Amino acid sequence: MSTQPPHPTLLIPGPIEFDDAVLQSMSHYAESHVAPGFVKTFGETLTLVRKLFQSSTPTAQPFVISGSGTLGWDIVASSLLEKGENALVLHTGYFADSFATCLETYGANATQLKAPIGDRPSFEQIEQALKEKPYKVITITHVDTSTGVLSDIKRVTEVVRRVSPQTLVVVDGVCSVGCEEIAFDEWDLDVVLTASQKAIGCPPGLSILMCSGRAIDCFKNRKTPPSSYYASMGNWLQIMQNYENMKPSYFATPPTQLVHALHTTLSQITAQGMPARFAIHRQASDKVKAAVAELGLTQLAANPDNQAHAMTAIWLPEGLAPPDVLPGLLKRGVIFAGGLHKEVATKYIRFGHMGVSVTSPGRNDIDKAIAALKESVTEAKQAKGL
Amino acid sequence: MSTQPPHPTLLIPGPIEFDDAVLQSMSHYAESHVAPGFVKTFGETLTLVRKLFQSSTPTAQPFVISGSGTLGWDIVASSLLEKGENALVLHTGYFADSFATCLETYGANATQLKAPIGDRPSFEQIEQALKEKPYKVITITHVDTSTGVLSDIKRVTEVVRRVSPQTLVVVDGVCSVGCEEIAFDEWDLDVVLTASQKAIGCPPGLSILMCSGRAIDCFKNRKTPPSSYYASMGNWLQIMQNYENMKPSYFATPPTQLVHALHTTLSQITAQGMPARFAIHRQASDKVKAAVAELGLTQLAANPDNQAHAMTAIWLPEGLAPPDVLPGLLKRGVIFAGGLHKEVATKYIRFGHMGVSVTSPGRNDIDKAIAALKESVTEAKQAKGL
Repeated sequence: MSTQPPHPTLLIPGPIEFDDAVLQSMSHYAESHVAPGFVKTFGETLTLVRKLFQSSTPTAQPFVISGSGTLGWDIVASSLLEKGENALVLHTGYFADSFATCLETYGANATQLKAPIGDRPSFEQIEQALKEKPYKVITITHVDTSTGVLSDIKRVTEVVRRVSPQTLVVVDGVCSVGCEEIAFDEWDLDVVLTASQKAIGCPPGLSILMCSGRAIDCFKNRKTPPSSYYASMGNWLQIMQNYENMKPSYFATPPTQLVHALHTTLSQITAQGMPARFAIHRQASDKVKAAVAELGLTQLAANPDNQAHAMTAIWLPEGLAPPDVLPGLLKRGVIFAGGLHKEVATKYIRFGHMGVSVTSPGRNDIDKAIAALKESVTEAKQAKGL
Repeated sequence: MSTQPPHPTLLIPGPIEFDDAVLQSMSHYAESHVAPGFVKTFGETLTLVRKLFQSSTPTAQPFVISGSGTLGWDIVASSLLEKGENALVLHTGYFADSFATCLETYGANATQLKAPIGDRPSFEQIEQALKEKPYKVITITHVDTSTGVLSDIKRVTEVVRRVSPQTLVVVDGVCSVGCEEIAFDEWDLDVVLTASQKAIGCPPGLSILMCSGRAIDCFKNRKTPPSSYYASMGNWLQIMQNYENMKPSYFATPPTQLVHALHTTLSQITAQGMPARFAIHRQASDKVKAAVAELGLTQLAANPDNQAHAMTAIWLPEGLAPPDVLPGLLKRGVIFAGGLHKEVATKYIRFGHMGVSVTSPGRNDIDKAIAALKESVTEAKQAKGL
C-alpha cells in the first residue's frame, strides 16, 4: 500500500509519480549541510550519479546543484563557451530554441540546424554543418519534451569525433536520463545535463550534470573569466570534489532534502542496473506506441527510429484539441500534458511513461492510461459529432 | 509529539529545525506544475511572500525561484546592473566579499565600504561614499551570517534617498527575512533577496526575492540585454505574475514540493503576524546574549546596536577553537556552527536562534542550547587546563 493519499496518476513528461521512499526522504529532519551525516549522503549521491551515467572515468565530474533543469543550459553557456565562439544547436523542438537563446545571452553564436516538426537533422546535415566552421560545442536534445523526438546521440558523437574531434558534445538529457540508454564514457560524451524530476523520479529542484575531463579542461583553459557566478563550473567544481571525498565544503547551501531524495532514487535505479531499466522503459514505450496506433492515432515523431521511450507525443484526431480530451483523462484518474511546441500546441497531447509508473507493474499505471486514452478520445469525438 | 525521528537540534544560522507540517508538505504527491491545484498553491505562496515583507504595493513583485540564496545575487547583478555601472557594497563580513565578486562577474564596478570585523560602516561613511560617484545600487547584508552583524537597513535607506535617491537599495536578507524587522514598502526598499532555509523555516532550495516597482522599471529600461538567462528577471516576471493571477505558465519547472513547504510555513508565519514574530525573535536573542555575557564570553558584534536577533557569533575563550567546543555541544544534543569569516574562523562559533526553535517554546531548544554551551565551554577549558 502506498503511503501517499489517493490522487490522479501524473503521466506528463515530468514531474512524474514518486516512489514512497523517495517522497519520505523529502521529509528528512534538519541537518547541517557541512555535518558528517549530510556530507556522506551528498558524497554518495555524486558517486551514484556516475553510476547513473555508467561512467567510471575519474576525470569525469558529476555536479548536483540547486536549480531547475534550465540552469544546466546556463552552466554550459557561461562555463564552456567564450564570447564569439560558435555553437551548433540541433533542433528537434521547443527546447533547442530556448537553449540557443541561452547560449546567445552569454555571447556565443548559436547556429540552429532545424528539422521539420517530429523529425531530426540527418547525420549528413550534421556532418556538413560541422565542416562549415569551427564549433566549440554541439548541443543535442536527447528527448525533446515538446515533440517526443529521440536523437541518436551515440551516432551524432561518432560524426563529431570524425569530423571535428575537439567540439564538445553537449546533451540536453532532461527528459532522457534514467530511461533512455546513455553510456557516457563509451560514447565519449562531454556534457549530459538533466533535472531531477523526470525519469530519475525525484521531485523537481536539482540541476544535474555529468561532464567529461575534456569539458572540465576546456573550462580550466578559458581565456576570459566565466560569465556567470552561480552557474560557473569554477565555483562548484571543488565543492563537488570535496563532498565526494567526504569533506564538507561551502559555496551555496545545497538543498539537503532534495539531495536525500536523489540519493534514495539513484540507489534504487542503480541497484536494478541501467540496462535492465532501459529495457523496461523500451517495453512500456512499445506498448504505448502500439496502443496509439491501434486507436488510429499517429505520433509527432513519425519514424520509429526517432521515437522517445520516455514519452509519446500524440496527434489528436482532426477537430479535437487538448481541452477536449484532457478532462476526460482526468475524470478517469490520469493526467497527460497538452502540446508545447508553439506551432502546433493545440493539436496534440503528451503521455509520459517514465519511472515508477513503468518500473512498478503492480501500479498498473500504463494500462490504466491506455484504457483512459481510448475512452476519452472516443468520448470527445462523439461529443463533437466526429 | 513531533512526527520527526529523534535527532540533534540544529541551531546553526541555517538550515534550521523544521515544523512537522512544513516537512510533511515536502512529501506532497506528484502534481503537474501547470495544473490548477499547484497553480493555486504557487499563486497563494507569492501573495504570502508579499505579506512576509509587509508589502501591499501592487507594482512590487515577489519572485520564488528554484536555487539557493546565492542565486539572488546573480539575479540582481545580471538584471539590475549593466556593464560598467557602479555598486556600493557595504561590508560586514564574508557575504559582502562574495556579493561583490558576483557583481563584478557581470561587469559592474563594485566598491566595498569595509568595517572592522564585528562592526559596520557608519552612516557618515555611507553618505560620503554616495556623494563621491553615482551608484546604480547599494547592497547591504542585513544580517551577515559570518559575523552576526545586523545592519540598519531602514536608516541606510533614508541616507540613500536623501543623498542619491535613484540608487537602488538591495538588501541581502538571507539570514534576516522572517525574524528581523523589515517593512518593505514603508522603508522604501528596492530588492530584498533571501533563501528558504533560514528564519522562513523551509528546507533549502528556493531563492526568494521581493522587488520594488522602481527595481522592475530599472530592469525594463535596460539599454543592454540582461547578461544571464536563468537569473534574468525578464524570464521570470511574467511567470510570477501569471501564477499569482492563477494562470499556469512555463519557463522552468518550479520545485513543486518546496513550494508546498514554503506555502505551509508562510501561512503559519503570516497568521501569527509579522510584528509578533519579530518580537519573539528579539526576546530569544536577548536571552541568548545575556547568557553569553554571563558566561564571560563576548560577541563579534560588540555594539548592541549591531547585534542580529537571528544568531549570535561568539568569541571562544583564548586558547579554544571550534573543534574543542562543538563536539561537547553535539554530545548534549545541540549543533552550532564554527566560524566562517576567513580571518578569524578558528576563533569563534555561531549559534542560530530562528524559527520553530524560538517560536515553539514547548521545544525548549534555546534553554537547552544555553545550558549545553555553558557546560561545553567549561569542559573544554578544563580539558585544556585553562
